[in-house]
Amino acid sequence: MRVSIVSIGDEVLIGQILNRNAAWLAEELTLAGCTLVEHVTIGDVAVQLTQTLDRLSLASEMIIMTGGLGPTHDDITKDVLTSYTNDLLVVSEGWLSHLHNWMRERGRQVTERNAGQALIPSRATILPNPIGTAPGLLLNHHECLLVALPGVPKEMQEITTHHVLPMLRERINAAREQRSEYVTLLTTGVAESTLADIIGDPTEFLGDCSLAFLPSYHGVRLRIGARSASPLTREQELWRVRDVLMQRVGTHVFGEGKQTLAEVVGLRLRELGQTLAIAESCTSGMLGARLTDVSGSSLWFLGGVMCYSNASKVRDVGVDEQTLVRHGAVSKEVAAELASGIRERFQSTYGIGITGVAGPGGGSEQKPVGTVYIAVSSPQRCVPIRFQFGDDRHVNRERSVGAALSMLWKELA
Amino acid sequence: MRVSIVSIGDEVLIGQILNRNAAWLAEELTLAGCTLVEHVTIGDVAVQLTQTLDRLSLASEMIIMTGGLGPTHDDITKDVLTSYTNDLLVVSEGWLSHLHNWMRERGRQVTERNAGQALIPSRATILPNPIGTAPGLLLNHHECLLVALPGVPKEMQEITTHHVLPMLRERINAAREQRSEYVTLLTTGVAESTLADIIGDPTEFLGDCSLAFLPSYHGVRLRIGARSASPLTREQELWRVRDVLMQRVGTHVFGEGKQTLAEVVGLRLRELGQTLAIAESCTSGMLGARLTDVSGSSLWFLGGVMCYSNASKVRDVGVDEQTLVRHGAVSKEVAAELASGIRERFQSTYGIGITGVAGPGGGSEQKPVGTVYIAVSSPQRCVPIRFQFGDDRHVNRERSVGAALSMLWKELA
Repeated sequence: MRVSIVSIGDEVLIGQILNRNAAWLAEELTLAGCTLVEHVTIGDVAVQLTQTLDRLSLASEMIIMTGGLGPTHDDITKDVLTSYTNDLLVVSEGWLSHLHNWMRERGRQVTERNAGQALIPSRATILPNPIGTAPGLLLNHHECLLVALPGVPKEMQEITTHHVLPMLRERINAAREQRSEYVTLLTTGVAESTLADIIGDPTEFLGDCSLAFLPSYHGVRLRIGARSASPLTREQELWRVRDVLMQRVGTHVFGEGKQTLAEVVGLRLRELGQTLAIAESCTSGMLGARLTDVSGSSLWFLGGVMCYSNASKVRDVGVDEQTLVRHGAVSKEVAAELASGIRERFQSTYGIGITGVAGPGGGSEQKPVGTVYIAVSSPQRCVPIRFQFGDDRHVNRERSVGAALSMLWKELA
Repeated sequence: MRVSIVSIGDEVLIGQILNRNAAWLAEELTLAGCTLVEHVTIGDVAVQLTQTLDRLSLASEMIIMTGGLGPTHDDITKDVLTSYTNDLLVVSEGWLSHLHNWMRERGRQVTERNAGQALIPSRATILPNPIGTAPGLLLNHHECLLVALPGVPKEMQEITTHHVLPMLRERINAAREQRSEYVTLLTTGVAESTLADIIGDPTEFLGDCSLAFLPSYHGVRLRIGARSASPLTREQELWRVRDVLMQRVGTHVFGEGKQTLAEVVGLRLRELGQTLAIAESCTSGMLGARLTDVSGSSLWFLGGVMCYSNASKVRDVGVDEQTLVRHGAVSKEVAAELASGIRERFQSTYGIGITGVAGPGGGSEQKPVGTVYIAVSSPQRCVPIRFQFGDDRHVNRERSVGAALSMLWKELA
């Protein structure tokens, strides 16, 4: 199943907004077994969309468009699709009644402009959008499926998840063609090259499978791909390679698929009925923000201190002033006192302390920019670790958060 | 100057990484006065790149490619460009000596693989890359300029800023063609519709200029565009419209261009020799992370508390237990005590307190999900404000951070 993606809208074309929709769609389509042909971003120009559809329909079995479905004059997608498929717009009574309900629930009336959202090409299938006013549209045109989705990310994702992907999976399975299926193992706390060394020569066990190393600040993802026409073979092959990898590097694997390290750590704390408090200096809130991104985090995250000044480290976390004087704020001793001090203060099961030189200023010969000390204090122990990251402030802070979560995850294992 | 962007690489095509390069380039090119034609993302497939160049060169005066310039087998860009322009690869002695210096400085030797980076199409101009091993390439082919840049964002940005944009600006100015120039005014603390009401009918003062409203969590950006062949006219028109807007909504404008609200607030505190401390409940670290994204923030940011539990609000910030019992943790009274408590504790000039129901759980009839109270405490006063955001946890937290920064900025004005 060869699929192309077309993003429509001046705001994407001129770089006002980042094209997260295309990346999200591309990843989901790949995981569902599709082969991506290309993404194209164009402005709100009808003739350009027509030409793009003409061209892409030669090489694609499906074209997914996002954007341009709204009710204003610069929303061109529906009109272009109607004329492109030699169709007419007709009122969909079903969607009109959805619009009336939708507006009534919000204490509003359907305006003339809104009502236009119920005008649908007569041969199009409506892909219901439960959280917005513009439905997705599906049209079959000369052996190519045309799918138009709203540009609002949540609405696009909702329709894709509940209508587009199931249809694609069904077609792909029914066709029983060669296709790829994927499993992603999420590792943390181990460098890409070390992971590669432990795994050894992958050609010895991969067979027809593929293996990709995908690094991020929080760890390396291992994406296994199995290619076959048979769903059973794909599944068996994925399990076979997964088993080999788990035997070799399983101790570094914290999860699968789209889980985050903060979610996994939170879930584990919740299962254990344990709690966490944190003292952040150079990351000053980034770890807390990441932990509380997880819904329900108040069950296991008690809070913490952004001890950006020395005074705060002493007063709010209980670091000994003498330790600061003797070893400096960026030291393994201060990291350890931050972790155990915050744990004691919050009466939590675990405490994390982070102190470092994020840059660009503040580096010295002994402790250059990128030096970060992190400690996790548990009922059993408190072991600080020194990290040497690079010279980019933003990256150093991100990597510190990843390393802290990784250390806590190991402690919880 | 009509420009297209081609992103090359399987990792972008299948959505493993977000295409930040295309957005960055598109924004810079637009600001430099170019007209974007389209962005295309393709995999590492030579024939697809050739076809894309064939097609785009008909409608574009410049095509900028990113990615595929590395030293491994899947890096196709240089080979495709060489054959596309009927050229030959030759060793660039200049770049080879750069590579030797580069490696020597890092205690390494030039391997055969690295040395391949000095093979350049004979008619190409090298665009020097001071922070990497792959140079940018510029080729003139049938009235279309072909520019190939590395995919590493920092290297791509460096070469674009120092070589591509200056060349474009020169050509655009020399051509003295109709082009657009932009100024962006950054507002905060006022809704898009209110801003539109205050500004009134823009056609009355815009003349040939354009005005776009670009909302974000931190405020609405007002982008003024002036179109003319004369640089002087563009400048005069931009100033004229800028003056009108500043007269009408200047009190809401915190900066221009790419400044952030955290930077502006930090700069102001630094000028005044004043300091800030914060107490975050529902945002738990997000505001601290945003403030300390600013280099040199330790000069004015003293730190704060992530008081995610009631115990922490009392113990670490000094909120009265009776206030919690009487009004609940999410209340204007607690927000006010968080702001003044943290200010007192850190002995800072200003204190910020944030408490709210981010969701998805925790809402009630009086305080549904999205209810957030924010207070700024100054030497003069402490005024809590109630906000009613929506039902998305992530968005509610982002908007809370934006609102808090906005309130502090008004207090500093």
